Amino acid sequence: MNSDLAGKILNKDKRGIARGITIIENSNSDSAELLKKIYSNIGRAYRIGITGPPGAGKSTLTNQLTKYYRKKGKTVGIIAVDPTSPYTGGALLGDRVRMSEIGQDEGVFIRSMATRGSLGGLSKKAIDAADIIDAAGYDFVILETVGVGQSELDIAQAADTTIVVLVPESGDAVQAMKAGLMEIADFFVLNKSDRPGAKQAVNAIKTILMMCDHDASSWMPNIIQTIASENDGIEETAAEIDRHREYLINMGNLKKRREHRTRLRIKEIVEDKIRTELWNDVREKSLNSSLEKVVLGNLSPYHIADEILENFRKQF
Amino acid sequence: MNSDLAGKILNKDKRGIARGITIIENSNSDSAELLKKIYSNIGRAYRIGITGPPGAGKSTLTNQLTKYYRKKGKTVGIIAVDPTSPYTGGALLGDRVRMSEIGQDEGVFIRSMATRGSLGGLSKKAIDAADIIDAAGYDFVILETVGVGQSELDIAQAADTTIVVLVPESGDAVQAMKAGLMEIADFFVLNKSDRPGAKQAVNAIKTILMMCDHDASSWMPNIIQTIASENDGIEETAAEIDRHREYLINMGNLKKRREHRTRLRIKEIVEDKIRTELWNDVREKSLNSSLEKVVLGNLSPYHIADEILENFRKQF
Repeated sequence: MNSDLAGKILNKDKRGIARGITIIENSNSDSAELLKKIYSNIGRAYRIGITGPPGAGKSTLTNQLTKYYRKKGKTVGIIAVDPTSPYTGGALLGDRVRMSEIGQDEGVFIRSMATRGSLGGLSKKAIDAADIIDAAGYDFVILETVGVGQSELDIAQAADTTIVVLVPESGDAVQAMKAGLMEIADFFVLNKSDRPGAKQAVNAIKTILMMCDHDASSWMPNIIQTIASENDGIEETAAEIDRHREYLINMGNLKKRREHRTRLRIKEIVEDKIRTELWNDVREKSLNSSLEKVVLGNLSPYHIADEILENFRKQF
Repeated sequence: MNSDLAGKILNKDKRGIARGITIIENSNSDSAELLKKIYSNIGRAYRIGITGPPGAGKSTLTNQLTKYYRKKGKTVGIIAVDPTSPYTGGALLGDRVRMSEIGQDEGVFIRSMATRGSLGGLSKKAIDAADIIDAAGYDFVILETVGVGQSELDIAQAADTTIVVLVPESGDAVQAMKAGLMEIADFFVLNKSDRPGAKQAVNAIKTILMMCDHDASSWMPNIIQTIASENDGIEETAAEIDRHREYLINMGNLKKRREHRTRLRIKEIVEDKIRTELWNDVREKSLNSSLEKVVLGNLSPYHIADEILENFRKQF
């Protein structure tokens, strides 16, 4: 690793930031070292999570929100996480549109991260990348993900304010509920609100929200209607982010929320390290050679697990 | 634990099986003990995974397939995993219909498992429950899940043959692709095939399949059209399961697939045990008291993680 990389990042050097995120994507030990160096500079950026089903217009909303913040003189870093398989090409196309719209702006940093193997790993890396951008001094970090799996929920929840974007298609709200999106939303954006069924969709979301058990004193998620492609409702979205931010600060919840997510994160780092040490070549081989016994019913997975555990206990 | 419980399970006693699954749901140590006792009897049942988006008709397909197998004199155990939040009531309703249709049949065992806290834990428990039913001597185990998250993919993949159920609604195939369902399907059932758009949906699935990189020599997933509610296409579905089963056996892949899933399972058991030991009260407390330092930027999560790891290393 370039020894001056941390300095470049803290200096808001875009190539340095990009290089830092590449290190995070590729390596565990180097990235830990880098993050330790920059860590005292994080905590200033406000983090916004944007998630929702495919096709809801998350990228368009992100782009418009970014332009809005830029007009206010704020800088924005975007991490777009795309869990779709490489062969869809979706990420690439979205990137091009985005780059041509806001990519040339000096006050905007954009990075796409795609699944390479494990999704769990990706969510950790996306959050590390957000730290890099935070340390570089951007005012806002937007974490944009497609809300289709646990890992994307993890990323969305790594934000201070989480927005779930839906469209008026019938059943979208119900699907979002089934996917666990209703529980994580600090507020909803009903995008493409000029489409038929917008009013019914708003009502459906309200009904579902009332069915959820929210804490008595707590924040009640609003529904903001937008037509992001026409820049309609963007100011209202930004205002709702502000309102939520103030709520968090006034209630002392911003710190609580950040502590909660730090807690999950530390656990993940510890468990990752143990996992790496546990499944070394020797133990992987020993596991593989015992599989046949299990499949033939001679030993249970629990017997083999006990053996591996005892061995690890001696060597850890 | 009732000391004779293993005996009751091996004797196909339904109350014993139900009790065994309850133990699996509630306890880690007792369930390991139970599973060790019955393990030499597993491996005979053929496991079918049925997954797909909400509303595709998975339960109806499961019920009809069960009736079909019963007519052939085969016994069937069903594990229905519902990851939706308790307040939907969906699981309960589906259960009632199911119980009245096939629940009274002596050769059918049905169990619903709902999320209680962690989804990851649920997938492990559902697979343990399938082992109980397998050990009890049922010919088929059907693992039915809503395909909306990684955990449901895990369960579906714990089967010998995995069926992805879709409906002709436009975009369903694309959404299934985004949710990772295309990669896990051994074949597809296009249910409600009397609806408009069925032919286009079949073509969409075929197109996506061709875009996926399948291994050269390997199995190419078929698409079976059904109207499950009218018992239409059920025989064809059963025939396709048979065809896939024969393919697996002839290619030597059934053993390979079972070994692969055993491998993942042992790893999960080992990691679960370590995690339980790692996050004891003392270490949880120490973690909690260090969070503020991280949030204030005084220490990075990687520093705290190192400290916890060193402490665990001494005491493990």
